[in-house]
Amino acid sequence: MHDTLRFYMPTRVCQEPDCVARHADALAALGPHALIVTGRRSSRMNGSLDDVTAALESQGVDYTIFDAVEEDPSVETVMAARDAGLAGGAAFVIGVGGGSPMDAAKAAAVMLAAPDKGWTHLYDGPAPALPVVAVPTTCGTGSEVTGIAVLTRHDLGTKVSMTPRVFPRLALVDGRYLLHAPQRILVNTAVDTLSHLIETVINARADAYSDMTAFAGLTAWRACRDVLEGRAALDAASAGQLMHAATLGGMSIAQTGTSLPHALSYLLTCRGGIPHGAAVGAFQARFLALADPVRREAVLHAAGFPDTASLGDWIAVHAPVKADAALLRQSAEAVLANTAKLRTCPYPVDAAIMETLIGGVPTV
Amino acid sequence: MHDTLRFYMPTRVCQEPDCVARHADALAALGPHALIVTGRRSSRMNGSLDDVTAALESQGVDYTIFDAVEEDPSVETVMAARDAGLAGGAAFVIGVGGGSPMDAAKAAAVMLAAPDKGWTHLYDGPAPALPVVAVPTTCGTGSEVTGIAVLTRHDLGTKVSMTPRVFPRLALVDGRYLLHAPQRILVNTAVDTLSHLIETVINARADAYSDMTAFAGLTAWRACRDVLEGRAALDAASAGQLMHAATLGGMSIAQTGTSLPHALSYLLTCRGGIPHGAAVGAFQARFLALADPVRREAVLHAAGFPDTASLGDWIAVHAPVKADAALLRQSAEAVLANTAKLRTCPYPVDAAIMETLIGGVPTV
Repeated sequence: MHDTLRFYMPTRVCQEPDCVARHADALAALGPHALIVTGRRSSRMNGSLDDVTAALESQGVDYTIFDAVEEDPSVETVMAARDAGLAGGAAFVIGVGGGSPMDAAKAAAVMLAAPDKGWTHLYDGPAPALPVVAVPTTCGTGSEVTGIAVLTRHDLGTKVSMTPRVFPRLALVDGRYLLHAPQRILVNTAVDTLSHLIETVINARADAYSDMTAFAGLTAWRACRDVLEGRAALDAASAGQLMHAATLGGMSIAQTGTSLPHALSYLLTCRGGIPHGAAVGAFQARFLALADPVRREAVLHAAGFPDTASLGDWIAVHAPVKADAALLRQSAEAVLANTAKLRTCPYPVDAAIMETLIGGVPTV
Repeated sequence: MHDTLRFYMPTRVCQEPDCVARHADALAALGPHALIVTGRRSSRMNGSLDDVTAALESQGVDYTIFDAVEEDPSVETVMAARDAGLAGGAAFVIGVGGGSPMDAAKAAAVMLAAPDKGWTHLYDGPAPALPVVAVPTTCGTGSEVTGIAVLTRHDLGTKVSMTPRVFPRLALVDGRYLLHAPQRILVNTAVDTLSHLIETVINARADAYSDMTAFAGLTAWRACRDVLEGRAALDAASAGQLMHAATLGGMSIAQTGTSLPHALSYLLTCRGGIPHGAAVGAFQARFLALADPVRREAVLHAAGFPDTASLGDWIAVHAPVKADAALLRQSAEAVLANTAKLRTCPYPVDAAIMETLIGGVPTV
């Protein structure tokens, strides 16, 4: 056993069909006015936004809707959400959607707690925040159970996590919202979940607690492969299982943080437009192939792959990428120069290892 | 998968050798004066009390020591601890020892937050509390990661949990404190841990999250059997593993609550003087034998027993009991009349099933 063990997961997780309506009283307990942070379309199509507003109305809680969160939200978007919340007098924030609205909700909650500050407050170290509730509608980010918000910095041309840690008070998880997701989104976000689970097991900070959540997540993820591969239709049970795997992925990276594949992916997404799930997935097979054999085989066994080549083939088929070769090289060089990022990896990474890691990514 | 999933575990867990000293700053962040709640002897012998006072002194935090917590602490003891904390001006409470001091610390924290109230406040529903830190020194109760405090009610002649839920903010877990424990205490508390894990898997509220923590706990527990059976010496690694299993047992019952063996044990302890671990252990084999075969076999496999008879033999050898026959029958009748207790069991319990459950307990 490792000498040092850590566990911290303060979010109360409730998962069930009709979850938002069933916990309307828990929303009301957070204050008289909610800022709802969401995207333009999907939360309207999958019913989650209607569920949230109906729950608030049933309790007499006022709300302001900010529905302009883009994919990979910027600090400018966070400030616009903050302004909407200030105008309405929000006492708490509800993020509804995928990782982008949930992350924007956490960041807006930080800014609402310091209404006189500018956006650089998001990078000034720990800070208080209004209470946050997360209602996930994709099966990827696990943001409903992490303290992290990854924000696009147009000034830097990449994504940077805000420094305060804001765990949602409450995660209301309802697999039914997945039933409306396009198969492409489903698979892309499920590859993100798989990546979170792999990067937790293959992580310098891995311990018995992070192994517990990550292997539970891999087992849950494996049970959904028929659906992801299009060999079975998504139903309420498998949607719930996919959501559960995603939440376990979030609980896992909340313990360890992510590792090199996430670090390598950000430029590909920000400047290359490759969706986050596909961008992190592209590095997983080689990242895992270089790891300690015992842990590597345990991951493969739990996820149901005979070897890392099969894992790589699976990801290439289901979440294909074509990366810009120059951008990929630029990303590798940036990560190689960042000792904090390199320390997340349990094996030493030099230029030759980095070549191997990026060598599996198809380029144009 | 179950339709409804729940997870809530807000305590920050830090486990490592020299854990208290390493987290002295986290203690100081809770306020200028600590009430330390502990027993008379063991926390002095195993070094935990010295570690706590040294950590506080290193940070300039004042403290008051209340060291009169008995086994199965009474509400009267809680009120005496409360008085000591009020006199000192305590801003937070540190419970140091086994389940008794940790439970007394949680209850004292409730009473310190309502200094004008009498002890019945402990049974008046949810209530705020001062922050609590738990420093466990036995490998049994898991109280460091539950919100529960079980208190002796001399007015009723039994133990009753207080109604407020007080999760420690911080659990500082150091296996080295176990190195000073007598083998009898070690084994008795390890049987309590095993009981928590079994009663979580065999529980009407069991779900994928409680299974995750409970099976991780059973696996950790099994790894310590050589030590518990006296075939290997306790060392730093196995002590850490025992503590880890106990913490996972606490995380598990924090999700589901305990079930019939715990309910049946309280009179045997309060009026019969049988130690808690042995009293709950006496019911485990038959409780498990009556459960769903798939879950029963999964528990046996994880804990390393071929069948429930072997489990029963093991507990009888390592934590033997001789219960008063009349007291045992009285306990069975009380539980049979308590529908709330019966609902914790995943299978229906009638008088015949209750006969089976208590029939395995040796009596005098």
